[in-house]
Amino acid sequence: MTDNSQFSTFDDAALAAEIVRQGDVIKGLKAQKVSKDQVAPHVERLKALKSENEARMAKKNEKQFDRAGLEGLLLKRFFYAPSFAIYGGVTGLFDYGPPGTALQNNIINLWRKHFVLEEDMLEIECTNLTPEAVLKTSGHVDRFADYMVRDVKTGEIFRADHLVKQVLNSRVDTDLAIKNGSFDKKKLAKGKPVPEPLAAGMREEYEMVLESLDNYQGDDLWKLMQKLEIKAPETGNDVTEPKLFNLMFETQIGPTGQFKGYLRPETAQGHFLNFKRLLESNQDQMPFASASIGKSFRNEISPRQGLLRVREFTMAEIEHYVDPLKKDHPRFDSVKDIELTLYPGDLQLKGAGTIKMKMGDAVAKGIVNNQTLGYFICRIYLFLLRIGINPTKLRFRQHMANEMAHYASDCWDAEILSSYGWIECVGCADRSAYDLTAHSKATKEKLVVRESLPEPIVRDVVILEVKKAVFGPAFKSNAKHVMGYLGTLLADGEEWDEARMKEGLTQWDAAKLKALEAQLKAGNGSTTITGTDGNKYVLTDKMVQVVEKTEKIHIREYVPNVVEPSFGLGRILYSLLEHVWWIREGDDEARNVLSFNPAVAPTKALILPISSNEQFNPFIKSIADSLRREGVSTRVDDSAASIGKRYSRNDELGTPFAITIDFQTVKDGTVTLRERDSLKQIREDIATVTRIIKELVEERISWADVEAKYTAFTGQEV
Amino acid sequence: MTDNSQFSTFDDAALAAEIVRQGDVIKGLKAQKVSKDQVAPHVERLKALKSENEARMAKKNEKQFDRAGLEGLLLKRFFYAPSFAIYGGVTGLFDYGPPGTALQNNIINLWRKHFVLEEDMLEIECTNLTPEAVLKTSGHVDRFADYMVRDVKTGEIFRADHLVKQVLNSRVDTDLAIKNGSFDKKKLAKGKPVPEPLAAGMREEYEMVLESLDNYQGDDLWKLMQKLEIKAPETGNDVTEPKLFNLMFETQIGPTGQFKGYLRPETAQGHFLNFKRLLESNQDQMPFASASIGKSFRNEISPRQGLLRVREFTMAEIEHYVDPLKKDHPRFDSVKDIELTLYPGDLQLKGAGTIKMKMGDAVAKGIVNNQTLGYFICRIYLFLLRIGINPTKLRFRQHMANEMAHYASDCWDAEILSSYGWIECVGCADRSAYDLTAHSKATKEKLVVRESLPEPIVRDVVILEVKKAVFGPAFKSNAKHVMGYLGTLLADGEEWDEARMKEGLTQWDAAKLKALEAQLKAGNGSTTITGTDGNKYVLTDKMVQVVEKTEKIHIREYVPNVVEPSFGLGRILYSLLEHVWWIREGDDEARNVLSFNPAVAPTKALILPISSNEQFNPFIKSIADSLRREGVSTRVDDSAASIGKRYSRNDELGTPFAITIDFQTVKDGTVTLRERDSLKQIREDIATVTRIIKELVEERISWADVEAKYTAFTGQEV
Repeated sequence: MTDNSQFSTFDDAALAAEIVRQGDVIKGLKAQKVSKDQVAPHVERLKALKSENEARMAKKNEKQFDRAGLEGLLLKRFFYAPSFAIYGGVTGLFDYGPPGTALQNNIINLWRKHFVLEEDMLEIECTNLTPEAVLKTSGHVDRFADYMVRDVKTGEIFRADHLVKQVLNSRVDTDLAIKNGSFDKKKLAKGKPVPEPLAAGMREEYEMVLESLDNYQGDDLWKLMQKLEIKAPETGNDVTEPKLFNLMFETQIGPTGQFKGYLRPETAQGHFLNFKRLLESNQDQMPFASASIGKSFRNEISPRQGLLRVREFTMAEIEHYVDPLKKDHPRFDSVKDIELTLYPGDLQLKGAGTIKMKMGDAVAKGIVNNQTLGYFICRIYLFLLRIGINPTKLRFRQHMANEMAHYASDCWDAEILSSYGWIECVGCADRSAYDLTAHSKATKEKLVVRESLPEPIVRDVVILEVKKAVFGPAFKSNAKHVMGYLGTLLADGEEWDEARMKEGLTQWDAAKLKALEAQLKAGNGSTTITGTDGNKYVLTDKMVQVVEKTEKIHIREYVPNVVEPSFGLGRILYSLLEHVWWIREGDDEARNVLSFNPAVAPTKALILPISSNEQFNPFIKSIADSLRREGVSTRVDDSAASIGKRYSRNDELGTPFAITIDFQTVKDGTVTLRERDSLKQIREDIATVTRIIKELVEERISWADVEAKYTAFTGQEV
Repeated sequence: MTDNSQFSTFDDAALAAEIVRQGDVIKGLKAQKVSKDQVAPHVERLKALKSENEARMAKKNEKQFDRAGLEGLLLKRFFYAPSFAIYGGVTGLFDYGPPGTALQNNIINLWRKHFVLEEDMLEIECTNLTPEAVLKTSGHVDRFADYMVRDVKTGEIFRADHLVKQVLNSRVDTDLAIKNGSFDKKKLAKGKPVPEPLAAGMREEYEMVLESLDNYQGDDLWKLMQKLEIKAPETGNDVTEPKLFNLMFETQIGPTGQFKGYLRPETAQGHFLNFKRLLESNQDQMPFASASIGKSFRNEISPRQGLLRVREFTMAEIEHYVDPLKKDHPRFDSVKDIELTLYPGDLQLKGAGTIKMKMGDAVAKGIVNNQTLGYFICRIYLFLLRIGINPTKLRFRQHMANEMAHYASDCWDAEILSSYGWIECVGCADRSAYDLTAHSKATKEKLVVRESLPEPIVRDVVILEVKKAVFGPAFKSNAKHVMGYLGTLLADGEEWDEARMKEGLTQWDAAKLKALEAQLKAGNGSTTITGTDGNKYVLTDKMVQVVEKTEKIHIREYVPNVVEPSFGLGRILYSLLEHVWWIREGDDEARNVLSFNPAVAPTKALILPISSNEQFNPFIKSIADSLRREGVSTRVDDSAASIGKRYSRNDELGTPFAITIDFQTVKDGTVTLRERDSLKQIREDIATVTRIIKELVEERISWADVEAKYTAFTGQEV
């Protein structure tokens, strides 16, 4: 809900009038040349009014959008379909058919170009199967869970927050219908009384709950559900107390039945575990990024909303490793003037709307935390536009503290507006040093960057010096047990590492060293300690010495921070389908069109002969072969259907260009090239047309360029 | 084992001499102009001798191949590495690092071009998660299993057939070593006696068992193991009786804990389940193919051999649907003259070697069953050559009946020779109508092609005619129960389908109809039957009539056969790595080189300035940008290392071209272009060099073309 609740008393007409009035107020103030500060709150109010208006428009749009119409088209043309349909299907699993797969492949190819190639990232591929220990460390085993409840009688299962949402929304809608007289009694179950309208203040309370539902966990959630008397909607039965259900798919690796694994819920962990090799691959240079495209799995409690909430999905994730002290970005200048729709956390708290702002300003004002985060937000924006997302239906929303994932320190979502509302399609989180630190602790493997300092750092330290010449001979083969004891004097998280000790990087536990020093003093230079084998050994100040000194450190060691742009490809793909779909009013009947841009269109060119005359065959073959050689995917449609029907079928598949072969072709080797959206045509020789198509697909030219350069062909194909 | 046992008495030198002698024999016969039939057996013997010689060479090659050297290089350059290494790793799981991922992506892109684009296939993407019912039907739940045994004391687990193989091979090797005096007593465990040499005939018996191990199942396998006294090799302990272990990873879908699923063991089932939609997408035209690239999962009992036997792997699978009566292929002519190394089943039985043969002849002689299978074998061959597989290390081996998968009616494997021996990398199976028929039966969904016949088929049939006008009013709301009874008179696998009945496609059970007719006659035109509700109803000859008639059928309905080329990408990738690896003897030290062809090379061009002079920076940027715009992946190496070190690093990554920027560049804008294998260079302006690289990568020209056209540059970079 993005409502600005302060405007809830305005109906739509009143809101429109208020926007005009507020504009006048500002004009008046400006005419009086009052100070900026005095105008500012009025401008804020105008922005909020406009955003409320936009939100209402969006909501209307959502209601008017003929989703069933689009879904029918997508199923008919097999963009995607429920998996295992002939076995009754499994909710939350979808197969992509030929146009859907080609569309996804093209989006992935552009993604690789836009990120991996243009940003010189290191692409990797890690396994889906993941052992429990890794996901225990990452926090997923303990925290990657949703609350579920059961209908106490039927056993039907609901995701608790979704159930609360569904019940409250339905109560609000019913209330509204009763109040404006549109309530349909026929829809009531037999014998059920017409519900009472909500008591005063209840609607507002419900809306507040809906807004803050993410805050309710465990006992609080259960109390809330009891207070709101949430029941199973179909049966009216009570539901059980919410129980946490882990969303990972569990399996056993290997034949022993004792090695638990999961299907990864994100691709990120694989990057982190390979950090050392990746840094090495990048010749130890910072910053750098790894990238990965692959499946992830979430065992949703009750998946719905088509491709938006599924149990298996393709993600494209980037982990950009950056020095926490240098979060500026070398190419930030190239994006700083891009204006974006932002929805920062504080505006959400105030219930105010979004703002438009240049990224340079957003970082300067601290709205976006740093250049690196800002750079990636802009690159995400440019990518989404590049594949055809409508920029007026795209915003970047900052996560509120209560919705942040357990590993994130800041997060902005690219949200795309579709008939389902504003949907998170790309997350851009600053995971800080969370994961690398956690894996490092769990495995005792240092996941750090070591950097030569231009100027050594000078600092006071307490260290333990071990006199090898005395120590070794004194303990002989037991030396390792005594060394083990000395290891317990290191600071938390440190390991015994001679090389690092020499560089002064090792941190000791000063208090423990002081205690040892005191013991040695008390024992006149000797004390008894317990080795790691459990035996007692006598340690003397000839062997070890606690030293306070000033050290010069030439090496800086740090755990990099990670900025993670994470793309849900299925969500992006579905949103794109909504954005490019429209209906062309035709002479005979309305036609579906999917206006993919040439770079993402599943098939680039349709090749069709005007009739089944055999003279056309060599031309079909030669055009198809030459486009194929150029890597341009085509379809030949030489079926008996009318040319209009064949065009129409390809509009539904979103094929941007059609090459028609007619009797003129046989005479002079020219063909017509038709563009899907404008229906404009040109007529040129085959070589020219294939070259034009290749350049259009490779985004070197646009259709406008073609129209400007070549004469429109308005004749009929012959 | 590809030994031609008849030659086992020849040592290597004798074999070589025998090949010369046999060649002379044939020349002599030809000089005498004897008939072809008389020469033929001598030619066969020569071929067998040569194949034995090749096999011995291959075996030597295998022993000499420095696998540890290659694996060290691949790990160092992070082509791939054990997954979860910092957690101790999980056997059978590997992550691909940047060069490995790029290599795999390039192979996949070529695969899409070679198959999906050039053959107009329908690419789809189906889910990994698969409900149990589907895999029950496909046979995997019951039959996709290996036998495993445990060490009775330590509990260590072995795959039974691998254990037998390991033990017998070790006995044979030991025997050989004892006999030729190379047995190393130091390698024996303490107190263990030197083993006796094998008794006469034992070695031959072991080799026969090894050859036919696939034949032993269940009890037979157990008896064999007991007879051979197979023990756990390290401990010498007894092992348990073999138990079947299903190789699929099991999980639960959804929160109920009652919906069992598996990770798919192959991508094929998803194709079959979508058959109806795919046929529709292809506008009901046959034949056609679907293609899919994705992960598959097999819970191997004890994975080993690096990338060759893993638990999670990428497959590329094609399902080509073909009319069982028309297995010719329209483009067979384009491949018929390709000569391949074939290893047909009968030659394997005879213990004879492979043969070289043109595919046209192989199909004509019935060695390869049909044109479609032959066409795909050739396309697989061309693909493997295209990515750089050495054709002398590639053969196509026909499956023997005992090793055929449960669904296959014929199968040829593309086997690639590596240090692990001949490894199956692509299967090309004729799955006949197995899967579509099985899913059809399980779901009652017809997975068939319906084809209008040019000439109607006339045939005699027995059918049941239902007189609706009498039937309906007689039974009213009970009509469906009586109809249910009539449904039981249909032939096995038929469903009640009015549309198909009208077309005469429905098959009745003639015997049941005759029985009903007899009952009606016996009851003077009426009989009592049991409806599907369990109640009795009286049926009369006014309502139904058994009719024998001659029908004209205009529609042919058939379940297509499926030819399945199935690629294991990890195995292909590893084999390729072995084939392209070599050592360049250098001035100072030997250097690793991976000679990828430009199309598959992970990075296409290295850009390097001769020193860190700032004057070079604009050139680096402009070359990198222009190659990037063309989609050519590059790496800049401006590190301080010597130019030789930097070349060397990129030889190890298999980067085929290097562009060097020097002071001449600053003067006249020319750069040198170095080719990795020949070390030859040319010097041209930047635009020319970037164009040349693009054309090389797109396989439009070869390096030989470049050398022919441009002057070699032999000067030193300045």
